[in-house]
Amino acid sequence: MLKGDERLDYLLAENLRIIQSPSVFSFSIDAVLLANFVHVPIQKGNIIDLCSGNGIVPLLLSKRTNADILGIEIQERLYDMAVRSVEYNGLNDRIQFLKGDIKEIPALLGRGKHDVVTCNPPYFKTPQKEQINPNEYLAIARHELLCTLEDVISVTAALLKQGGKAAFVHRPGRLIEIVTLMKKYQLEPKKMRLVYPRMGKEANILLIEGIKNGKPDLRVLPPLYIFEEGNYTEEVQEMLYGK
Amino acid sequence: MLKGDERLDYLLAENLRIIQSPSVFSFSIDAVLLANFVHVPIQKGNIIDLCSGNGIVPLLLSKRTNADILGIEIQERLYDMAVRSVEYNGLNDRIQFLKGDIKEIPALLGRGKHDVVTCNPPYFKTPQKEQINPNEYLAIARHELLCTLEDVISVTAALLKQGGKAAFVHRPGRLIEIVTLMKKYQLEPKKMRLVYPRMGKEANILLIEGIKNGKPDLRVLPPLYIFEEGNYTEEVQEMLYGK
Repeated sequence: MLKGDERLDYLLAENLRIIQSPSVFSFSIDAVLLANFVHVPIQKGNIIDLCSGNGIVPLLLSKRTNADILGIEIQERLYDMAVRSVEYNGLNDRIQFLKGDIKEIPALLGRGKHDVVTCNPPYFKTPQKEQINPNEYLAIARHELLCTLEDVISVTAALLKQGGKAAFVHRPGRLIEIVTLMKKYQLEPKKMRLVYPRMGKEANILLIEGIKNGKPDLRVLPPLYIFEEGNYTEEVQEMLYGK
Repeated sequence: MLKGDERLDYLLAENLRIIQSPSVFSFSIDAVLLANFVHVPIQKGNIIDLCSGNGIVPLLLSKRTNADILGIEIQERLYDMAVRSVEYNGLNDRIQFLKGDIKEIPALLGRGKHDVVTCNPPYFKTPQKEQINPNEYLAIARHELLCTLEDVISVTAALLKQGGKAAFVHRPGRLIEIVTLMKKYQLEPKKMRLVYPRMGKEANILLIEGIKNGKPDLRVLPPLYIFEEGNYTEEVQEMLYGK
Protein backbone atom coordinates (compact mmCIF):
# COMPACT_ATOMS: atom_id res chain seq x y z
CA MET A 1 0.00 0.00 0.00
CA LEU A 2 2.87 2.44 0.66
CA LYS A 3 4.83 3.89 -2.27
CA GLY A 4 8.45 5.12 -2.38
CA ASP A 5 9.54 6.74 0.89
CA GLU A 6 6.01 6.92 2.30
CA ARG A 7 5.34 6.11 5.96
CA LEU A 8 2.11 5.24 7.72
CA ASP A 9 2.18 7.67 10.65
CA TYR A 10 0.00 7.64 13.72
CA LEU A 11 -2.58 10.39 14.27
CA LEU A 12 -4.26 10.95 17.62
CA ALA A 13 -2.32 8.14 19.26
CA GLU A 14 -3.65 4.87 17.84
CA ASN A 15 -6.95 6.11 16.47
CA LEU A 16 -6.01 7.14 12.95
CA ARG A 17 -3.14 6.55 10.55
CA ILE A 18 -2.00 8.84 7.75
CA ILE A 19 0.30 8.27 4.79
CA GLN A 20 3.16 10.77 4.66
CA SER A 21 6.37 11.18 2.77
CA PRO A 22 9.27 13.48 3.56
CA SER A 23 9.92 14.07 -0.14
CA VAL A 24 6.27 14.64 -1.14
CA PHE A 25 4.21 15.91 1.78
CA SER A 26 4.11 15.71 5.57
CA PHE A 27 1.50 17.65 7.50
CA SER A 28 2.52 20.48 9.80
CA ILE A 29 1.11 21.47 13.16
CA ASP A 30 -0.71 24.31 11.41
CA ALA A 31 -3.19 21.86 9.88
CA VAL A 32 -3.77 20.25 13.28
CA LEU A 33 -4.46 23.64 14.82
CA LEU A 34 -6.91 24.49 12.02
CA ALA A 35 -8.80 21.21 12.42
CA ASN A 36 -9.21 21.92 16.13
CA PHE A 37 -10.07 25.62 15.73
CA VAL A 38 -12.88 25.56 13.17
CA HIS A 39 -16.47 25.38 14.30
CA VAL A 40 -18.12 22.25 12.83
CA PRO A 41 -21.67 20.94 12.92
CA ILE A 42 -21.68 17.80 15.09
CA GLN A 43 -24.29 15.61 13.44
CA LYS A 44 -24.71 16.59 9.81
CA GLY A 45 -23.81 19.08 7.12
CA ASN A 46 -21.13 19.32 4.49
CA ILE A 47 -17.59 20.52 4.85
CA ILE A 48 -15.01 21.28 2.18
CA ASP A 49 -11.29 21.39 2.84
CA LEU A 50 -9.39 23.28 0.12
CA CYS A 51 -5.69 22.63 -0.61
CA SER A 52 -6.09 19.40 1.32
CA GLY A 53 -2.60 17.94 0.80
CA ASN A 54 -2.44 14.40 2.17
CA GLY A 55 -5.86 14.85 3.78
CA ILE A 56 -4.78 15.70 7.30
CA VAL A 57 -7.59 18.20 7.98
CA PRO A 58 -10.45 15.93 6.76
CA LEU A 59 -9.04 13.01 8.75
CA LEU A 60 -8.86 15.04 11.96
CA LEU A 61 -12.26 16.66 11.39
CA SER A 62 -13.86 13.22 11.09
CA LYS A 63 -13.22 12.81 14.84
CA ARG A 64 -15.19 15.97 15.61
CA THR A 65 -18.17 15.72 13.25
CA ASN A 66 -20.40 13.26 11.42
CA ALA A 67 -20.82 15.70 8.53
CA ASP A 68 -19.75 14.80 4.98
CA ILE A 69 -16.23 16.01 4.29
CA LEU A 70 -14.76 16.67 0.87
CA GLY A 71 -11.09 17.44 0.39
CA ILE A 72 -9.86 19.21 -2.75
CA GLU A 73 -6.26 18.68 -3.85
CA ILE A 74 -4.67 19.64 -7.16
CA GLN A 75 -1.59 17.41 -6.97
CA GLU A 76 -2.26 13.85 -8.17
CA ARG A 77 0.44 12.37 -5.94
CA LEU A 78 -0.97 14.00 -2.75
CA TYR A 79 -4.56 13.26 -3.73
CA ASP A 80 -3.57 9.62 -4.12
CA MET A 81 -2.01 9.56 -0.63
CA ALA A 82 -5.14 11.13 0.86
CA VAL A 83 -7.45 8.59 -0.80
CA ARG A 84 -5.35 5.66 0.44
CA SER A 85 -5.24 7.07 3.99
CA VAL A 86 -9.03 7.38 4.09
CA GLU A 87 -9.38 3.82 2.79
CA TYR A 88 -6.92 2.53 5.39
CA ASN A 89 -8.96 4.18 8.14
CA GLY A 90 -12.26 2.87 6.76
CA LEU A 91 -13.68 6.38 6.45
CA ASN A 92 -14.76 6.25 2.77
CA ASP A 93 -18.41 6.78 3.72
CA ARG A 94 -17.66 10.14 5.36
CA ILE A 95 -14.58 11.55 3.60
CA GLN A 96 -14.15 11.96 -0.14
CA PHE A 97 -11.41 13.61 -2.15
CA LEU A 98 -11.58 15.39 -5.45
CA LYS A 99 -8.51 16.05 -7.55
CA GLY A 100 -8.73 19.46 -9.15
CA ASP A 101 -8.08 23.17 -9.17
CA ILE A 102 -9.98 24.95 -6.39
CA LYS A 103 -10.86 27.76 -8.81
CA GLU A 104 -13.07 25.33 -10.75
CA ILE A 105 -14.83 23.87 -7.72
CA PRO A 106 -17.73 26.36 -7.31
CA ALA A 107 -18.79 25.79 -10.92
CA LEU A 108 -18.51 22.04 -10.40
CA LEU A 109 -20.26 21.72 -7.03
CA GLY A 110 -22.53 24.75 -7.08
CA ARG A 111 -22.46 28.04 -5.20
CA GLY A 112 -23.82 28.69 -1.72
CA LYS A 113 -24.33 25.03 -0.80
CA HIS A 114 -21.77 24.30 1.92
CA ASP A 115 -21.79 24.75 5.69
CA VAL A 116 -18.07 24.98 6.37
CA VAL A 117 -14.93 25.53 4.31
CA THR A 118 -11.43 25.11 5.74
CA CYS A 119 -8.08 25.86 4.14
CA ASN A 120 -4.41 25.70 5.08
CA PRO A 121 -3.17 27.46 1.94
CA PRO A 122 0.33 28.03 0.58
CA TYR A 123 1.82 30.73 2.82
CA PHE A 124 4.30 32.44 0.57
CA LYS A 125 4.01 34.71 -2.42
CA THR A 126 5.62 33.21 -5.48
CA PRO A 127 9.34 34.03 -5.38
CA GLN A 128 11.72 34.60 -8.26
CA LYS A 129 12.11 31.47 -10.39
CA GLU A 130 15.57 30.62 -9.09
CA GLN A 131 14.33 30.69 -5.47
CA ILE A 132 11.49 28.24 -5.98
CA ASN A 133 11.92 24.92 -4.20
CA PRO A 134 13.17 22.44 -6.85
CA ASN A 135 10.89 19.82 -5.29
CA GLU A 136 7.67 20.62 -7.16
CA TYR A 137 5.38 18.96 -4.56
CA LEU A 138 6.74 21.13 -1.78
CA ALA A 139 6.94 24.25 -3.95
CA ILE A 140 3.23 24.02 -4.83
CA ALA A 141 2.24 23.41 -1.21
CA ARG A 142 4.29 26.33 0.12
CA HIS A 143 4.16 28.98 -2.59
CA GLU A 144 1.23 30.60 -4.34
CA LEU A 145 2.15 28.98 -7.65
CA LEU A 146 -1.25 27.46 -8.45
CA CYS A 147 -3.53 29.51 -6.18
CA THR A 148 -3.28 32.84 -4.45
CA LEU A 149 -4.77 33.90 -1.14
CA GLU A 150 -7.45 35.77 -3.07
CA ASP A 151 -8.31 32.58 -5.00
CA VAL A 152 -8.71 30.69 -1.71
CA ILE A 153 -10.93 33.33 -0.14
CA SER A 154 -13.09 34.01 -3.20
CA VAL A 155 -13.66 30.27 -3.77
CA THR A 156 -14.47 29.77 -0.09
CA ALA A 157 -17.03 32.56 -0.19
CA ALA A 158 -18.60 31.17 -3.36
CA LEU A 159 -19.01 27.70 -1.84
CA LEU A 160 -20.53 28.80 1.48
CA LYS A 161 -24.21 29.14 2.34
CA GLN A 162 -25.37 32.33 4.01
CA GLY A 163 -24.16 32.02 7.61
CA GLY A 164 -21.67 29.31 6.64
CA LYS A 165 -18.25 29.33 8.29
CA ALA A 166 -14.81 29.71 6.75
CA ALA A 167 -11.65 28.95 8.72
CA PHE A 168 -8.08 29.59 7.64
CA VAL A 169 -4.63 29.14 9.07
CA HIS A 170 -1.88 31.47 7.89
CA ARG A 171 1.05 33.60 9.00
CA PRO A 172 0.31 36.66 11.20
CA GLY A 173 2.32 38.78 8.77
CA ARG A 174 -0.53 38.45 6.30
CA LEU A 175 -3.40 39.10 8.71
CA ILE A 176 -4.18 42.49 7.21
CA GLU A 177 -4.34 41.06 3.70
CA ILE A 178 -6.53 38.16 4.87
CA VAL A 179 -9.10 40.32 6.63
CA THR A 180 -9.15 42.78 3.73
CA LEU A 181 -9.90 39.92 1.32
CA MET A 182 -12.43 38.34 3.68
CA LYS A 183 -14.32 41.65 3.84
CA LYS A 184 -14.11 41.97 0.05
CA TYR A 185 -15.85 38.61 -0.35
CA GLN A 186 -18.40 39.10 2.46
CA LEU A 187 -16.74 36.72 4.90
CA GLU A 188 -16.97 38.65 8.15
CA PRO A 189 -14.11 37.77 10.54
CA LYS A 190 -15.71 36.67 13.83
CA LYS A 191 -13.13 34.64 15.73
CA MET A 192 -9.35 34.81 15.80
CA ARG A 193 -6.68 32.97 17.72
CA LEU A 194 -3.00 33.73 17.69
CA VAL A 195 -0.48 30.98 18.21
CA TYR A 196 2.88 31.62 19.85
CA PRO A 197 5.83 29.22 19.86
CA ARG A 198 6.16 29.84 23.61
CA MET A 199 5.55 32.54 26.23
CA GLY A 200 7.32 35.83 25.55
CA LYS A 201 7.63 35.22 21.79
CA GLU A 202 5.82 36.88 18.89
CA ALA A 203 2.95 34.98 17.25
CA ASN A 204 3.92 32.79 14.30
CA ILE A 205 0.58 31.23 13.35
CA LEU A 206 -2.81 32.86 12.83
CA LEU A 207 -6.18 31.11 13.00
CA ILE A 208 -9.18 33.05 11.76
CA GLU A 209 -12.82 32.16 11.21
CA GLY A 210 -15.43 34.19 9.35
CA ILE A 211 -19.14 33.92 8.73
CA LYS A 212 -20.61 34.56 5.31
CA ASN A 213 -22.48 37.87 5.57
CA GLY A 214 -22.02 37.86 9.37
CA LYS A 215 -22.41 40.91 11.57
CA PRO A 216 -19.11 42.70 12.33
CA ASP A 217 -17.71 41.80 15.77
CA LEU A 218 -14.45 39.96 16.26
CA ARG A 219 -13.64 37.79 19.27
CA VAL A 220 -9.98 37.18 20.03
CA LEU A 221 -9.60 33.84 21.81
CA PRO A 222 -6.96 33.20 24.49
CA PRO A 223 -3.43 32.80 23.10
CA LEU A 224 -2.28 29.31 22.21
CA TYR A 225 1.28 28.35 23.09
CA ILE A 226 2.97 25.42 21.34
CA PHE A 227 5.84 24.72 23.73
CA GLU A 228 6.43 25.12 27.43
CA GLU A 229 9.78 24.18 28.92
CA GLY A 230 10.76 22.36 25.73
CA ASN A 231 7.65 20.14 25.58
CA TYR A 232 4.34 20.52 23.80
CA THR A 233 1.83 22.30 26.03
CA GLU A 234 -1.05 20.25 27.37
CA GLU A 235 -3.45 21.77 24.87
CA VAL A 236 -1.23 20.86 21.90
CA GLN A 237 -0.58 17.37 23.27
CA GLU A 238 -4.33 16.77 23.32
CA MET A 239 -4.64 17.90 19.71
CA LEU A 240 -1.78 15.68 18.56
CA TYR A 241 -2.25 12.60 20.70
CA GLY A 242 -5.87 12.83 21.87
CA LYS A 243 -7.12 12.91 25.44
CA MET B 1 -5.52 74.28 42.48
CA LEU B 2 -8.07 71.42 42.58
CA LYS B 3 -11.69 72.09 41.59
CA GLY B 4 -14.87 70.29 42.72
CA ASP B 5 -14.32 66.58 43.35
CA GLU B 6 -10.89 66.55 41.69
CA ARG B 7 -8.02 64.56 43.19
CA LEU B 8 -4.28 64.82 42.62
CA ASP B 9 -3.39 61.17 41.93
CA TYR B 10 0.05 59.62 41.78
CA LEU B 11 1.45 58.36 38.48
CA LEU B 12 4.50 56.11 38.29
CA ALA B 13 4.84 55.99 42.06
CA GLU B 14 6.03 59.44 43.19
CA ASN B 15 7.35 60.71 39.89
CA LEU B 16 4.28 62.38 38.42
CA ARG B 17 0.91 63.58 39.64
CA ILE B 18 -2.29 63.89 37.62
CA ILE B 19 -5.55 65.69 38.29
CA GLN B 20 -8.55 63.38 38.07
CA SER B 21 -12.21 63.53 38.94
CA PRO B 22 -14.64 60.63 39.20
CA SER B 23 -17.46 62.78 37.81
CA VAL B 24 -15.46 64.31 34.94
CA PHE B 25 -12.61 62.05 33.86
CA SER B 26 -10.28 59.45 35.30
CA PHE B 27 -7.82 57.67 33.08
CA SER B 28 -8.13 53.95 32.41
CA ILE B 29 -5.43 51.33 32.09
CA ASP B 30 -5.96 51.46 28.31
CA ALA B 31 -4.20 54.84 28.14
CA VAL B 32 -1.30 53.50 30.21
CA LEU B 33 -0.95 50.54 27.87
CA LEU B 34 -0.97 52.84 24.83
CA ALA B 35 1.70 55.12 26.30
CA ASN B 36 3.93 52.10 26.86
CA PHE B 37 3.20 50.44 23.52
CA VAL B 38 3.86 53.22 21.03
CA HIS B 39 7.29 53.63 19.49
CA VAL B 40 8.65 57.10 20.31
CA PRO B 41 11.80 58.93 19.26
CA ILE B 42 14.02 59.24 22.33
CA GLN B 43 15.74 62.59 21.86
CA LYS B 44 13.66 64.80 19.57
CA GLY B 45 10.65 65.00 17.32
CA ASN B 46 7.02 65.92 17.73
CA ILE B 47 4.18 63.84 19.02
CA ILE B 48 0.47 64.53 18.99
CA ASP B 49 -2.01 62.83 21.29
CA LEU B 50 -5.58 63.09 20.02
CA CYS B 51 -8.60 62.86 22.37
CA SER B 52 -6.19 63.52 25.20
CA GLY B 53 -8.66 63.69 28.09
CA ASN B 54 -6.90 64.77 31.29
CA GLY B 55 -3.53 64.39 29.57
CA ILE B 56 -2.57 60.94 30.82
CA VAL B 57 -0.84 59.82 27.61
CA PRO B 58 1.32 62.98 27.19
CA LEU B 59 2.32 62.83 30.87
CA LEU B 60 3.41 59.20 30.64
CA LEU B 61 5.13 59.71 27.28
CA SER B 62 7.25 62.50 28.77
CA LYS B 63 9.04 59.80 30.79
CA ARG B 64 9.99 57.94 27.60
CA THR B 65 10.95 60.75 25.23
CA ASN B 66 12.36 64.26 25.09
CA ALA B 67 10.23 65.06 22.01
CA ASP B 68 7.67 67.86 22.03
CA ILE B 69 4.23 66.55 22.91
CA LEU B 70 0.95 68.20 22.05
CA GLY B 71 -2.34 66.93 23.44
CA ILE B 72 -5.63 67.80 21.71
CA GLU B 73 -8.81 67.80 23.77
CA ILE B 74 -12.22 69.15 22.81
CA GLN B 75 -13.75 69.38 26.29
CA GLU B 76 -12.83 72.62 28.09
CA ARG B 77 -13.12 71.05 31.53
CA LEU B 78 -10.73 68.17 30.66
CA TYR B 79 -8.35 70.45 28.79
CA ASP B 80 -8.19 72.62 31.90
CA MET B 81 -7.34 69.60 34.08
CA ALA B 82 -4.61 68.54 31.66
CA VAL B 83 -3.04 72.02 31.59
CA ARG B 84 -2.99 72.22 35.39
CA SER B 85 -1.45 68.74 35.70
CA VAL B 86 1.36 69.67 33.33
CA GLU B 87 1.98 72.87 35.27
CA TYR B 88 2.02 70.98 38.55
CA ASN B 89 4.64 68.60 37.17
CA GLY B 90 6.73 71.43 35.72
CA LEU B 91 6.55 69.97 32.22
CA ASN B 92 5.29 73.09 30.37
CA ASP B 93 8.42 73.22 28.23
CA ARG B 94 7.76 69.76 26.78
CA ILE B 95 3.99 69.22 26.89
CA GLN B 96 1.37 71.58 25.49
CA PHE B 97 -2.37 71.21 25.14
CA LEU B 98 -4.70 72.62 22.55
CA LYS B 99 -8.44 72.80 23.08
CA GLY B 100 -10.26 71.99 19.89
CA ASP B 101 -11.90 69.56 17.52
CA ILE B 102 -9.43 67.02 16.12
CA LYS B 103 -11.03 67.40 12.68
CA GLU B 104 -9.73 70.97 12.49
CA ILE B 105 -6.18 70.16 13.64
CA PRO B 106 -4.55 69.27 10.29
CA ALA B 107 -5.65 72.60 8.80
CA LEU B 108 -4.39 74.40 11.90
CA LEU B 109 -1.03 72.65 12.34
CA GLY B 110 -0.30 71.58 8.79
CA ARG B 111 -0.27 68.20 7.10
CA GLY B 112 2.57 65.68 7.08
CA LYS B 113 4.60 67.36 9.81
CA HIS B 114 4.48 65.01 12.79
CA ASP B 115 6.54 61.97 13.80
CA VAL B 116 4.04 60.19 16.01
CA VAL B 117 0.31 60.37 16.68
CA THR B 118 -1.37 58.49 19.53
CA CYS B 119 -5.06 58.18 20.33
CA ASN B 120 -7.24 56.42 22.89
CA PRO B 121 -10.52 57.29 21.20
CA PRO B 122 -14.13 56.84 22.30
CA TYR B 123 -14.81 53.10 21.99
CA PHE B 124 -18.53 52.96 21.34
CA LYS B 125 -20.71 53.86 18.42
CA THR B 126 -23.24 56.51 19.36
CA PRO B 127 -26.23 54.78 20.93
CA GLN B 128 -29.87 55.79 20.83
CA LYS B 129 -30.43 59.10 22.59
CA GLU B 130 -32.04 57.59 25.68
CA GLN B 131 -29.03 55.28 26.23
CA ILE B 132 -26.41 58.03 26.21
CA ASN B 133 -24.69 58.59 29.54
CA PRO B 134 -26.39 61.63 31.13
CA ASN B 135 -22.95 62.79 32.31
CA GLU B 136 -21.84 64.69 29.20
CA TYR B 137 -18.12 64.51 30.03
CA LEU B 138 -18.20 60.74 30.22
CA ALA B 139 -20.56 60.38 27.25
CA ILE B 140 -18.20 62.33 24.98
CA ALA B 141 -15.18 60.35 26.16
CA ARG B 142 -16.88 56.98 25.66
CA HIS B 143 -19.17 57.42 22.67
CA GLU B 144 -18.46 58.62 19.16
CA LEU B 145 -20.55 61.74 19.69
CA LEU B 146 -17.98 64.31 18.57
CA CYS B 147 -15.60 62.12 16.58
CA THR B 148 -15.82 58.76 14.89
CA LEU B 149 -13.10 56.16 14.43
CA GLU B 150 -12.78 57.28 10.82
CA ASP B 151 -12.25 60.90 11.99
CA VAL B 152 -9.46 59.74 14.32
CA ILE B 153 -7.71 57.69 11.66
CA SER B 154 -8.06 60.19 8.83
CA VAL B 155 -6.79 63.05 11.04
CA THR B 156 -3.90 60.90 12.26
CA ALA B 157 -2.88 60.08 8.69
CA ALA B 158 -3.10 63.74 7.69
CA LEU B 159 -0.83 64.85 10.54
CA LEU B 160 1.90 62.23 10.05
CA LYS B 161 5.06 62.55 7.99
CA GLN B 162 5.92 59.75 5.55
CA GLY B 163 7.17 56.92 7.77
CA GLY B 164 5.57 58.50 10.85
CA LYS B 165 3.95 56.20 13.41
CA ALA B 166 0.33 56.03 14.55
CA ALA B 167 -0.69 54.06 17.64
CA PHE B 168 -4.21 53.35 18.83
CA VAL B 169 -5.84 51.49 21.68
CA HIS B 170 -9.33 50.09 21.13
CA ARG B 171 -11.57 47.07 21.65
CA PRO B 172 -10.70 43.85 19.76
CA GLY B 173 -14.29 43.73 18.50
CA ARG B 174 -13.44 46.62 16.21
CA LEU B 175 -10.08 45.36 14.94
CA ILE B 176 -11.41 44.66 11.46
CA GLU B 177 -12.87 48.15 11.15
CA ILE B 178 -9.65 49.72 12.45
CA VAL B 179 -7.35 47.92 10.01
CA THR B 180 -9.76 48.59 7.14
CA LEU B 181 -9.68 52.32 7.94
CA MET B 182 -5.91 52.33 8.49
CA LYS B 183 -5.43 50.80 5.02
CA LYS B 184 -7.88 53.32 3.55
CA TYR B 185 -5.75 56.19 4.87
CA GLN B 186 -2.34 54.63 4.05
CA LEU B 187 -1.45 53.77 7.63
CA GLU B 188 0.00 50.28 7.24
CA PRO B 189 -0.52 48.16 10.39
CA LYS B 190 2.92 46.92 11.46
CA LYS B 191 2.69 45.93 15.13
CA MET B 192 -0.17 44.60 17.21
CA ARG B 193 -0.50 43.48 20.78
CA LEU B 194 -3.54 41.88 22.33
CA VAL B 195 -4.29 42.38 25.99
CA TYR B 196 -6.08 39.74 28.04
CA PRO B 197 -7.55 40.26 31.52
CA ARG B 198 -5.81 37.03 32.58
CA MET B 199 -4.70 33.68 31.19
CA GLY B 200 -7.45 31.64 29.56
CA LYS B 201 -9.66 34.68 28.84
CA GLU B 202 -10.49 36.37 25.54
CA ALA B 203 -8.69 39.60 24.68
CA ASN B 204 -10.43 42.79 25.80
CA ILE B 205 -7.97 45.46 24.67
CA LEU B 206 -6.21 45.92 21.34
CA LEU B 207 -3.02 47.91 20.74
CA ILE B 208 -2.08 48.58 17.15
CA GLU B 209 0.62 50.67 15.49
CA GLY B 210 0.89 51.61 11.86
CA ILE B 211 3.42 53.39 9.67
CA LYS B 212 2.36 55.97 7.14
CA ASN B 213 2.91 54.36 3.72
CA GLY B 214 4.73 51.44 5.35
CA LYS B 215 5.36 48.11 3.67
CA PRO B 216 2.75 45.44 4.53
CA ASP B 217 3.94 43.02 7.23
CA LEU B 218 2.34 42.76 10.65
CA ARG B 219 4.14 41.60 13.78
CA VAL B 220 2.02 40.27 16.62
CA LEU B 221 3.79 40.85 19.92
CA PRO B 222 3.54 38.45 22.88
CA PRO B 223 0.20 38.62 24.72
CA LEU B 224 -0.10 41.02 27.62
CA TYR B 225 -1.98 39.84 30.69
CA ILE B 226 -3.36 42.37 33.18
CA PHE B 227 -3.93 40.13 36.21
CA GLU B 228 -2.36 37.00 37.58
CA GLU B 229 -3.75 35.42 40.74
CA GLY B 230 -5.74 38.56 41.50
CA ASN B 231 -2.79 40.97 41.29
CA TYR B 232 -1.43 43.07 38.45
CA THR B 233 1.18 41.16 36.50
CA GLU B 234 4.78 42.30 36.85
CA GLU B 235 4.67 43.98 33.42
CA VAL B 236 1.56 46.02 34.31
CA GLN B 237 2.94 46.91 37.73
CA GLU B 238 6.00 48.39 36.04
CA MET B 239 3.81 50.46 33.73
CA LEU B 240 1.68 51.76 36.60
CA TYR B 241 4.22 52.20 39.35
CA GLY B 242 7.55 52.33 37.52
CA LYS B 243 10.53 50.06 38.03
